[in-house]
Amino acid sequence: MAPQQGTLLSYRPDIQVLDATIRDGGLVNSFHFTDEFVKKLYQTNVKAGVDYMEFGYKASKELFDVNKFGKWKFCNEEAIRGIVGDNNTSLKLSVMADVGRTDLENDILDKNDSVIDLIRVATYINTIPAAIDMAEYCKSKGYETSINIMAVSTSNDKDIKQALELIGQSGADMICIVDSYGSMYPEQIRELAEMYTEVGEKYGKKIGIHAHNNQQMAFANTIEATARGVSVLDATMSGIGRGAGNCPMEALVGFLKNPKYKLDPVLKFVQNEMLKLKNDGLVWGYDIPYLLTGILNLHPRSAIDCIQQGNTDYSEFFQELWDKEC
Amino acid sequence: MAPQQGTLLSYRPDIQVLDATIRDGGLVNSFHFTDEFVKKLYQTNVKAGVDYMEFGYKASKELFDVNKFGKWKFCNEEAIRGIVGDNNTSLKLSVMADVGRTDLENDILDKNDSVIDLIRVATYINTIPAAIDMAEYCKSKGYETSINIMAVSTSNDKDIKQALELIGQSGADMICIVDSYGSMYPEQIRELAEMYTEVGEKYGKKIGIHAHNNQQMAFANTIEATARGVSVLDATMSGIGRGAGNCPMEALVGFLKNPKYKLDPVLKFVQNEMLKLKNDGLVWGYDIPYLLTGILNLHPRSAIDCIQQGNTDYSEFFQELWDKEC
Repeated sequence: MAPQQGTLLSYRPDIQVLDATIRDGGLVNSFHFTDEFVKKLYQTNVKAGVDYMEFGYKASKELFDVNKFGKWKFCNEEAIRGIVGDNNTSLKLSVMADVGRTDLENDILDKNDSVIDLIRVATYINTIPAAIDMAEYCKSKGYETSINIMAVSTSNDKDIKQALELIGQSGADMICIVDSYGSMYPEQIRELAEMYTEVGEKYGKKIGIHAHNNQQMAFANTIEATARGVSVLDATMSGIGRGAGNCPMEALVGFLKNPKYKLDPVLKFVQNEMLKLKNDGLVWGYDIPYLLTGILNLHPRSAIDCIQQGNTDYSEFFQELWDKEC
Repeated sequence: MAPQQGTLLSYRPDIQVLDATIRDGGLVNSFHFTDEFVKKLYQTNVKAGVDYMEFGYKASKELFDVNKFGKWKFCNEEAIRGIVGDNNTSLKLSVMADVGRTDLENDILDKNDSVIDLIRVATYINTIPAAIDMAEYCKSKGYETSINIMAVSTSNDKDIKQALELIGQSGADMICIVDSYGSMYPEQIRELAEMYTEVGEKYGKKIGIHAHNNQQMAFANTIEATARGVSVLDATMSGIGRGAGNCPMEALVGFLKNPKYKLDPVLKFVQNEMLKLKNDGLVWGYDIPYLLTGILNLHPRSAIDCIQQGNTDYSEFFQELWDKEC
């Protein structure tokens, strides 16, 4: 399976788009989306030709209080069916499962009993064996699986290569490049894409990308990865997601030439639903504090605090980042 | 003069940064910046190690009513001296002169009588000979000169090559890639950068880039051009500029590794001055209507109208663009 290349006029039929609006957007509002919102998003994704819709996390109810989060942190089967019924559409459904924070035996049903298609295991580079165990467990239950190595910008190439080799030999179907801190430039993304697609080619795995917009690079990095053979592309409506957010679906679908993708349903969802969230006070998207954590390759938590506190002393904030986190 | 390449850890001493805050930002507020703002910007650019500060246009007073615009549309010598005195700093001063809208004989003094260092001639591809005449006139007066081919995304490669060849043979010192419509992707910018730097190398011209942010690509395109040997980089504070604006100075200076560039003065200017402009109601920066004109490779004028009217029916706006402008 050689990674495919395209031109700006052609298209690659192997491209797949994954909508992570609820899952990454849930980190902004503790997963408190209304059912109406999620239903409209589902209908939008079907109409727009999106390939996967990620509903949220399969978080352990031992570790997290179900009363403190919306239902998409847990993604019970009945919650998803309440939106999609039996999902008689070509849109596949995805959930994310964090290493160490998922109760696999209780919460992952047999695929025969579930409308979920894809389980994406989120791991840091030091828990790859646990991630592989989880992915293989899910695979044995009948699901398509992905391993997403988070915060890859903090790992060195040797470790990434070893991790990729281990995942390559595992039962996982996909491997996802995750720039959690939004700190990477297209030049670095191209290098990573080459490293990942080489393993993908060797072992028959699809390669994906999940980019963050701290430095206004989420869309640019996504299409640069695409130009280097990455095929599963994460995006969210209006770029909603933790901190600076993600690659905007409207930009990505506007860019892709695959005839199956339709921009109009996305634009309608943005104007009717996403603007409402913004007007109701939900805050996400590029801002200077995210640029600064991005430049320093740091987790955006301090930037999120800075913005929530209405602190606009960027100069002082940057010096504090150096003092406390570098 | 071979175009230089760098890595993400090294730096290229040939890089120069041009601050176009007043010139492109002036298109947002009809050049009505206060003297205090312009003075602080000048001091910021000096402290930050910026190489050029573009004060505005040398617009003809026959064609434009001086009462309808702020003084930076005209950039009289005394206006600039009111800010910089004799400019005893290492910051060079720039103005822009539009083909067909500049009164060269009255408004371009001998360099000996002026604090201006660089005159950038803005032209469309069909007026290159006039642009060359202007640049050579300014050169004969003693100035450094640039020719900026605007809206290059609407020209074909053959015409661009011919234009570059003509400019190469002219007296102009620089040639600037201008993505006026913010419609270009990094892949296209790299191709253009190679085309321009080839001519630059052949004839000893510096190559610059001026990017727009309609598709959130201004910063990405700027650093991609840099990686391909482009050396004169336009940016503006907080990305202020017509419509979706430009490459943000804070992102660019945060990225460049050249020790002479300092981020802190830029952050202080952004927090103290640019936030005030935003809070006072000045509107610029990425928004969906700009994405849509960018996708269609159109002038942003309809998107500017759409946003000024508070129209958020993006779906209808996009259909109207197709009907009226494509």
